[in-house]
Amino acid sequence: MKKLWMLLLLFPFLVSAKPQTDTTYRCPPCGNTCDNVSFSKAGTCAHCGMTLVSKQEKDSITAQKKISICFYLYDGVEVLDFAGPMEVFSYAGFNVFTVAKTKAPLTSQGILKINPDYSIADAPPADIFAVFGGDDNVTTNDPEVIAWIKSRDKATQSYFSVCTGAFILGKAGLLDHLQVTTFHRSIANLQSAVPSAKVLSNVRYVDNGRIITTAGISAGIDGALHLVAKLKGKDEAKRIAAHMEYDKYQAEQGLIVR
Amino acid sequence: MKKLWMLLLLFPFLVSAKPQTDTTYRCPPCGNTCDNVSFSKAGTCAHCGMTLVSKQEKDSITAQKKISICFYLYDGVEVLDFAGPMEVFSYAGFNVFTVAKTKAPLTSQGILKINPDYSIADAPPADIFAVFGGDDNVTTNDPEVIAWIKSRDKATQSYFSVCTGAFILGKAGLLDHLQVTTFHRSIANLQSAVPSAKVLSNVRYVDNGRIITTAGISAGIDGALHLVAKLKGKDEAKRIAAHMEYDKYQAEQGLIVR
Repeated sequence: MKKLWMLLLLFPFLVSAKPQTDTTYRCPPCGNTCDNVSFSKAGTCAHCGMTLVSKQEKDSITAQKKISICFYLYDGVEVLDFAGPMEVFSYAGFNVFTVAKTKAPLTSQGILKINPDYSIADAPPADIFAVFGGDDNVTTNDPEVIAWIKSRDKATQSYFSVCTGAFILGKAGLLDHLQVTTFHRSIANLQSAVPSAKVLSNVRYVDNGRIITTAGISAGIDGALHLVAKLKGKDEAKRIAAHMEYDKYQAEQGLIVR
Repeated sequence: MKKLWMLLLLFPFLVSAKPQTDTTYRCPPCGNTCDNVSFSKAGTCAHCGMTLVSKQEKDSITAQKKISICFYLYDGVEVLDFAGPMEVFSYAGFNVFTVAKTKAPLTSQGILKINPDYSIADAPPADIFAVFGGDDNVTTNDPEVIAWIKSRDKATQSYFSVCTGAFILGKAGLLDHLQVTTFHRSIANLQSAVPSAKVLSNVRYVDNGRIITTAGISAGIDGALHLVAKLKGKDEAKRIAAHMEYDKYQAEQGLIVR
């Protein structure tokens, strides 16, 4: 009986001596404000749809090296060309940043005024280099930018182009002897610009391993989902497509060159 | 015979006296750099796919009042929510401009830094007022912006929301007693926020005449194509979808409330 009284008296101290653990749940990093919210129960985030994880798991994910992707933008870049993939890669947890020739504001689609994160003078390296269509001759006719793209080649694991962004990769000598695609009205022109390549029409994207080129404008969404499927699995690509309500998504709609 | 000689001598003067007409062809206004290019033959523009018109026709189109659409943006706005419709309305020849609470740069999707064209202090009126999802509470919880939206109502012909942008229209009292939709994870929340509305799930967009609300993120593209079909005809919507290679486009996929 004395022992029981002793235990009862010690109870508050025994409880407080238990190590404190954070039992709340968090959204895995997705680049949205829900990154900063904690939840009292397990489940999915109502905002981004990702499965909630413990604080410890989140800290571990955050500590891992994220896949980085450089979005090279220029005056006259087509807005959906880059915005579709930006949406996809953001939800895949990639580190997406924008680069232009200079840090001066640029205009997309004659409408949207954008401040790039970096210029070619200070852009960090990235795992993936992405280019987009529109007035691509602004870039293909700029030897300084083409030389800069070439200079980053050793540090770049892979390339991703949407629409006539393929002309930029072509000018940098990256499409030689590959099967590639571009905007449907530019198939013949790209074939002339890169005679050694085989330019395909009627394909949503072509994946050569290191280099993915997609068809025009909205096809960038499918190409980006394909890249996510390749790097993070098909389930992750399907989750993102469902979250974006891209309900017409068809996996493996492109050509994968092996 | 004398008359014939007279005519032959006068021939160069008769020819030069003929009124000079510009026989080149132009791209109808589309907001891209091809707006500034002239073509020697009739046909379609290789850049934007629009059927070329004579200089006189182009001048006539330019002189017509364009449909204007205000894209209201805010910190945390979802990038594809607005970029998909921006692409569509740009090719439909609408006058698209961006407005935010202030002219300070804002960040979309935690990535894209944007300079809005106008603030709520100097934004011109627009035929259509468009709002988008993301961290929409930045706007729904801002009485100054909600009051500004209400103050423009008489000058606004119609409203267009994508994803959780519907919460902003709801807060401005614009969705009362209507059938509406929103992001798939926010159906119940919008129903709580606007009890008199009927919030529908599994519909790509709902058109109430003056007010169109779309489902989440990529559904904005379908809603925008529907609005173009309504204002400029189904052929124009199909032409734009084909140009964007939005090859899974299905016309009339939404609900039109009559």
